[in-house]
Amino acid sequence: MTLLLDNEFQPLPPDKAVDTKLFLETVSHLPSFFDCLGSSVFGLIKSDVNGNITKIKAVYLKDPQRYVTLQDIVEAEREAHAAQWPKIGATLALMWLKRGLRFIQVLLQSLADGEKDPNNPNLIKVNVIKAYEEALKKYHGWVVQKIFSAALCAAPYRSNFLKALSKGEEAKEEDCLANVRQFLVNYTATVDAIYEMYTSLNAELDYTV
Amino acid sequence: MTLLLDNEFQPLPPDKAVDTKLFLETVSHLPSFFDCLGSSVFGLIKSDVNGNITKIKAVYLKDPQRYVTLQDIVEAEREAHAAQWPKIGATLALMWLKRGLRFIQVLLQSLADGEKDPNNPNLIKVNVIKAYEEALKKYHGWVVQKIFSAALCAAPYRSNFLKALSKGEEAKEEDCLANVRQFLVNYTATVDAIYEMYTSLNAELDYTV
Ligand SMILES: CCCCCCCCCCCCC/C=C/[C@@H](O)[C@H](CO[C@@H]1O[C@H](CO)[C@H](O)[C@H](OS(=O)(=O)O)[C@H]1O)NC(=O)CCCCCCCCCCC
Ligand SMILES: CCCCCCCCCCCCC/C=C/[C@@H](O)[C@H](CO[C@@H]1O[C@H](CO)[C@H](O)[C@H](OS(=O)(=O)O)[C@H]1O)NC(=O)CCCCCCCCCCC
Repeated sequence: MTLLLDNEFQPLPPDKAVDTKLFLETVSHLPSFFDCLGSSVFGLIKSDVNGNITKIKAVYLKDPQRYVTLQDIVEAEREAHAAQWPKIGATLALMWLKRGLRFIQVLLQSLADGEKDPNNPNLIKVNVIKAYEEALKKYHGWVVQKIFSAALCAAPYRSNFLKALSKGEEAKEEDCLANVRQFLVNYTATVDAIYEMYTSLNAELDYTV
Repeated sequence: MTLLLDNEFQPLPPDKAVDTKLFLETVSHLPSFFDCLGSSVFGLIKSDVNGNITKIKAVYLKDPQRYVTLQDIVEAEREAHAAQWPKIGATLALMWLKRGLRFIQVLLQSLADGEKDPNNPNLIKVNVIKAYEEALKKYHGWVVQKIFSAALCAAPYRSNFLKALSKGEEAKEEDCLANVRQFLVNYTATVDAIYEMYTSLNAELDYTV
């Protein structure tokens, strides 16, 4: 089966509360997404994302009964650390994690929508740049933006990337894209719900690194 | 006291065997060296170096009596994992860690020797580039080399960097440099000893990332 659909996200309940345990289980398979990108350059980004997940999990495990939804965690930290919140704890880790998740979402959506550079149809640069601009760029100072541009040269070819997402399978491009589309349904809903939660709790920050 | 001299390396014994416990204790203070560099850009490098240290420590703690020196660890892994060695375990972690240590050594030595760009005497670019070329460049493919060039823009000013190395103190430049020189004595001897051990055990690899 495909890397993506093996670890599909669950549909959200009507109130769009994200179940912490399910979220952590599913999301912890995503860093291997970066292995699909093929270059060791992405190993360090993977550690950053893994670090976010580890931090949220550590808070959750302190009191699973109390932290049933992600919002429970963010609200509890707002109470406990009023002065530094939201730049603290799992609230900060999830703030950054959601940006990485959004990056992946926009990249996959753009591929699924067939967006291509007509002159280089087998490159995914346009899709990666779009994802970067929508999810991360405004939180990066100019040095990190320059690092991103350099790292872009390590982006894999479209065909190899799609094959890697369906690892093992000898999948046709159309089948890969169908998998991507199916994966995106619950995934996008989950990421959107986390963004909405940050907006409604006024937990979003826009400092740059 | 200074960041460097608070955690000075011990002199080596005559046989130049590096004591594992002392090495790990001292070296675990070094990642804060990257905080002196001032930019969040270096946080990810710090995690890579910390990862190396954690890996070596985990092996050591499995049997401290057996792994008294770093060479004991490397030799034990050569026996235990003949097929994959040296690209495995603490042997691999120390292979990379020593390159980061060499980078720091060459950078500090170059500052201590007063090497400067006459047109930009308060920039440390020439020193950082020298350290990169001697310690890391040949192990980095062209994308990572490009990332290095981008990251170089985040290098701090010479005066700020020297002040950060003597954190807290209102130290004069000459005092800071004297501290650096004293730190380098045992530090350089330790790093050299690890390099010699890798050469004599034929444990060095030159693949690029
Ligand atoms: C020696 C030679 C080389 C020298 C130089 C090398 C320098 C390399 C540095 C590159 C940096 C770029 C990526 C990392 C950026 C990270 O700095 C940011 C902020 O990171 C957050 O920071 C917080 C504090 O402000 C907390 O510590 C968070 O941690 S906490 O859990 O403790 O709260 C942490 O995630 N994360 C980000 O920007 C997130 C990045 C997600 C990436 C998503 C996919 C991108 C794929 C790109 C494909 C083309
Ligand atoms: C989203 C936007 C941004 C997108 C893109 C961001 C991409 C960022 C990627 C930057 C990569 C550069 C630095 C990291 C390089 C690392 O890849 C290498 C090899 O790392 C080693 O790899 C081994 C396997 O081959 C093991 O996993 C080792 O791990 S193991 O412990 O498991 O065995 C591991 O250390 N370490 C290195 O090259 C070592 C680097 C030491 C640095 C020393 C100081 C440099 C200071 C520079 C000052 C100017």
